Amino acid sequence: MKLPRPWESLRSVKGDAPRLAYFGPAGTFTEEAALLFEPQAQLLPFASIAAVASAVETGMAEQGVVPIENSLEGSVTDTLDLLIHESDLSICREVVLPIRHHLLVRPGTQTQEIGLIFSHPQALAQCRRFIERCFPKAQVVAALSTAAAVEDVMASDKPAAAIGTERAASLYGAEVAACAIQDRAENVTRFVVLAEHDHPPTGHDRTSLCFAFAEDRPGALCDVLQEFSQRDINLVKIESRPSKESLGRYIFLIDFEGHRQDAGAAEALARLREKVSLLKVFGSYPIYAA
Amino acid sequence: MKLPRPWESLRSVKGDAPRLAYFGPAGTFTEEAALLFEPQAQLLPFASIAAVASAVETGMAEQGVVPIENSLEGSVTDTLDLLIHESDLSICREVVLPIRHHLLVRPGTQTQEIGLIFSHPQALAQCRRFIERCFPKAQVVAALSTAAAVEDVMASDKPAAAIGTERAASLYGAEVAACAIQDRAENVTRFVVLAEHDHPPTGHDRTSLCFAFAEDRPGALCDVLQEFSQRDINLVKIESRPSKESLGRYIFLIDFEGHRQDAGAAEALARLREKVSLLKVFGSYPIYAA
Repeated sequence: MKLPRPWESLRSVKGDAPRLAYFGPAGTFTEEAALLFEPQAQLLPFASIAAVASAVETGMAEQGVVPIENSLEGSVTDTLDLLIHESDLSICREVVLPIRHHLLVRPGTQTQEIGLIFSHPQALAQCRRFIERCFPKAQVVAALSTAAAVEDVMASDKPAAAIGTERAASLYGAEVAACAIQDRAENVTRFVVLAEHDHPPTGHDRTSLCFAFAEDRPGALCDVLQEFSQRDINLVKIESRPSKESLGRYIFLIDFEGHRQDAGAAEALARLREKVSLLKVFGSYPIYAA
Repeated sequence: MKLPRPWESLRSVKGDAPRLAYFGPAGTFTEEAALLFEPQAQLLPFASIAAVASAVETGMAEQGVVPIENSLEGSVTDTLDLLIHESDLSICREVVLPIRHHLLVRPGTQTQEIGLIFSHPQALAQCRRFIERCFPKAQVVAALSTAAAVEDVMASDKPAAAIGTERAASLYGAEVAACAIQDRAENVTRFVVLAEHDHPPTGHDRTSLCFAFAEDRPGALCDVLQEFSQRDINLVKIESRPSKESLGRYIFLIDFEGHRQDAGAAEALARLREKVSLLKVFGSYPIYAA
C-alpha cells in the first residue's frame, strides 16, 4: 500500500507553513517528534539522517528533526557523527518523546492466529519479553523501519502483526491489537531540531559540543572539565567516541546546563579552546518542557 | 539450508576442549572473534547477549564472547547494560577484529542481475555507498543477522546477494562476489570474553568499570577523574549512559590503562569508592595484541 507523499498532500493546504525535514518515513517516532515540535509544518520525510541535514543545508527545508539519544539504546551514532564530522548546522531545539510500541494488525485479524511479527530489529529487541510471553511460536521478521513493517503486515497473506506507532496504524489503516508492549516503561528518545542558527538565550538552556586533544595524556580531560565545575556549570552528558581513525583516539561529547552566551559558559568555552585541538559547539537551545 | 549445530559437530572431535559461548549464529563476526580467541574451543552459539551471560553463569560454558564497541557505531548497549545491571561476570580478555563486509551470492549468480540485497540494517547502513554506486536499482531487504541474510539468499528464487562474512560464505556454500565493500576501511569491533574471574596482571592491562553519583553536582565527575590523573593513570574511554530511570541521571563508564591490582590503580579505586553511590569493576585484562 502506497501513501501520498506529505509534500504532495500538504503543500496545497498548508501554503506558507515552515518546511520541516525529518528522518522518515511517515509513521515513525521522528515524525511524531516533528509533529509535536511544529504541528503546522509541511513535513518532508527523508531516508537518512544525512539527507535531513542536506535538505536544511540546501534550503529544501528550514529545519530538520533527527533522533540523538534513547534512554535504553544510548546515542544515535549517525546523528553524532553528522554533527562532529559532516555538517555545520546548529541544534536550535530539543524534543523528548516517550517511545511506545504497539502491536498492529490488519483489521479483522484474530490475534491467536498471528504467526509472523514484523519490525525493525531494534523494536523487536525492545519488545522481546512481550513476544516470548504472548507469541512464543511466532516467527519474527526483520523490516527496514517500523513503518515498513506495517506495510509488510498489510500486504501479508498470512495472519501477521507489526510492531509500530499509533500514527503508523492510522496512516496505513492498521488496527492496534495491543498497546505499549515494550519491555520497559521508561523508554524515551531525545530528538534535536537542526537549523542554520541555534536558539537565543531563554534562561533555561542546554548546550551541546564536542572536543578532542592533539595527544592523550592523563589529566587532559580533567583540566577541561574543571573549567566548567569551577564556574558551577553542571554537565548533563559526557561521552567519548572513537575518532574514526582507530579505537583508542577519542572525541569527547559534552552537554552542559546553560547557554553558550552566558558569561560563565562563554569564559569556560574560551579557556577550553586553548586546551584542545578541536572544538565544535553544536548549539544552545531551550531545555524541553513537555 | 540448515547446518549442524556446533556442539553436535564439535563435541565428539574436540573432547575436553573448553566450551565457549558466543552471540551467534555461526557465520557472524562474534564467531570470528571467538575462533580468534580460542581456535580449539567448542563453540556454543546463543541467540542474545544476555543468553551468552546466562550460559557462563550456569556452567553451560566456561567463557562467553560478546561485542562491546565498534569504531563506527560506538558502544554495544546490550553488553554494557548487562555488565552494569544484570550480571556479575567479569571481563577476562578482549579481542579486536577488523570488520570486513563481503557481497555474497549463490554460486553461478550473475552480479548484474542482482535485484535484491539482504542484510542486517546495520550492515546495510555500513555499505550504503557501495550499494548506491554498484546496485542503484536493487531493493534492500532487512534480515535479523548477516548470517540469516546469507540463508535468505541461498533460498531466494530471484538473483540476490547478502552482505556478510567470509566465514558465512563457507558455512552456507555461498560465493564471495565482492570483497570489503564497507564504506569505511577503518571499521573494527572490540569483543570481550566474560568469565567468572578477570585476568591476573600482565603488566600491559586495561580495566573497565562503571560508577554513579547519588546526586548531580558540578565537579563531581572531575573529582573522580582526578583520582586517576593524579596517579598518572591514563583513561582510554569515558561514557555517560542514561541510568534507565530517566534521561538526565547518568551512569559513567570508564576504561583505564593498568590493572586494578596495580598499587596506584588500587588506591584510586579505593578513593573512588568513597565518592560514589555505585561502583562496579567489570575486570582487568590484557590489552589485545593482534
